[in-house]
Amino acid sequence: MIEMRGKAVSDRIKEDIAESLDAVIKALGRKPRLEIIRVGTNEADASYGRSAIKKAEAFGMSAGLTSFPSDISYESFEEHIRKKSRDEDVDGILVLRPLPPELLEAAERGLSPDKDLDGMTDINMSRLFQGQEGGFAPCTAMAVMRLLDFYGADTHGKHVVIIGRSPVVGKPLAMLMLSRDATVTVCHSKTGEDILREQLSSADIICTAVGKAEFLGPEYIKEGAVIVDCGINVSEEGKLCGDVDYEAVKEKCLMISPVPGGLGAVTTAVLCENLFKAARIKVGK
Amino acid sequence: MIEMRGKAVSDRIKEDIAESLDAVIKALGRKPRLEIIRVGTNEADASYGRSAIKKAEAFGMSAGLTSFPSDISYESFEEHIRKKSRDEDVDGILVLRPLPPELLEAAERGLSPDKDLDGMTDINMSRLFQGQEGGFAPCTAMAVMRLLDFYGADTHGKHVVIIGRSPVVGKPLAMLMLSRDATVTVCHSKTGEDILREQLSSADIICTAVGKAEFLGPEYIKEGAVIVDCGINVSEEGKLCGDVDYEAVKEKCLMISPVPGGLGAVTTAVLCENLFKAARIKVGK
Repeated sequence: MIEMRGKAVSDRIKEDIAESLDAVIKALGRKPRLEIIRVGTNEADASYGRSAIKKAEAFGMSAGLTSFPSDISYESFEEHIRKKSRDEDVDGILVLRPLPPELLEAAERGLSPDKDLDGMTDINMSRLFQGQEGGFAPCTAMAVMRLLDFYGADTHGKHVVIIGRSPVVGKPLAMLMLSRDATVTVCHSKTGEDILREQLSSADIICTAVGKAEFLGPEYIKEGAVIVDCGINVSEEGKLCGDVDYEAVKEKCLMISPVPGGLGAVTTAVLCENLFKAARIKVGK
Repeated sequence: MIEMRGKAVSDRIKEDIAESLDAVIKALGRKPRLEIIRVGTNEADASYGRSAIKKAEAFGMSAGLTSFPSDISYESFEEHIRKKSRDEDVDGILVLRPLPPELLEAAERGLSPDKDLDGMTDINMSRLFQGQEGGFAPCTAMAVMRLLDFYGADTHGKHVVIIGRSPVVGKPLAMLMLSRDATVTVCHSKTGEDILREQLSSADIICTAVGKAEFLGPEYIKEGAVIVDCGINVSEEGKLCGDVDYEAVKEKCLMISPVPGGLGAVTTAVLCENLFKAARIKVGK
């Protein structure tokens, strides 16, 4: 069994960036700059924001976070994001999701596609949907691909089951997997137990983005499956865990990503990679 | 076995439009107008264009087709579509696909989302991807849903297998099916025979959009499956046929759509429905 730990992938991404970071900093006249925008008081958002800032700084770039109260108006929110989109000293923007539908729309309207590091604008979503290169795809979905690539898990011709249909993880991941020639099944909260079991029992690769602590046990999977756990939950005993019952499942897997220690570090590294890409495009390097 | 014929569905859509057509014509001061844009000399395009015009006229609306040579420049093509997008006397535009990537981009840039009857602009694709109401989804994908609804084939909690991953049929259909609580598997040309067989053998609903004459035989499907055939092909004997070997498969099905006589009539009816919707929104009816 190979444990797919995220740190090694993150380190590789850091090295790749380091190769041309100096040239980009020289051309920009400063470090690439990330702006994170958060609404409300959700602790998970705050924690992700802190990790992202730490990662950007560790990668030799700079980052800041602005928080807004959850009763901010559509107009003020859009205007703030528009201002950051126009700000010459900001290269990339991450608006933490989920957001209430109205504020999500305001963010999408205000955000420049060139700085849209998490692929939430219409143009980036449309590119992803059509399998076109050149845009930004949501970081968590991209991180799954990076993790699989790093550990040599090929997707071509494989049966991939994704559990979760959100526009932030499940659906973007389905599009990326289709572009990589996987046959893709998307299961979700309305998938019956019999269909879920049938699909999982034949899956070569399973990606869970459900938010249910340790729900996936060994009875669901086939011997030799590859599992990427996108969940971040707190178990009944109060410990951080994923959607997969890691200890119970791991011996049956060919590869599996733990939580914590798995996808999270790759997601923030992909965010930094997208920031660096936005900065490079800006200076033409 | 229920044969899902398209004409009855098309007639129902016509009746629904007829209920408020007079009011819309009165408010517009003319009939709703469809513009079809075709590039090149593909006979399938010409044939679809003729059917669409005939259908729009039969539904009490008006339609025209403009053909361009396949060597038209990016700029001229975009400019033409932009002009039609601005034309007060045009309510909806259909650009026939597939197109070369460059011309597709020109079309997407020039086309107003409000007249984008086949859901090819970024905004409409992004809405579809996020499962939002209010935009236009590609007509063929919508037609599959209309056909299933009309004949009472429920998608909630069902396992749906879509064969084909194009941005015009397979992927949009996957999004619509997910919005309707189906568990969705997308197979395609790179899906191995073993995975294809396994998926199809458990599928409650199968939608084929492959373009391979009569490739789907009875050995693939389970007793009582529902099949929607989106293919339009010419068999070795020169007859028009779908992706499904209809005669061989039909007795094993609960419901199946024939080719010809199935989805085609629904697709042009959905196009007219979208045209009518665009005209209604324009006049606020």
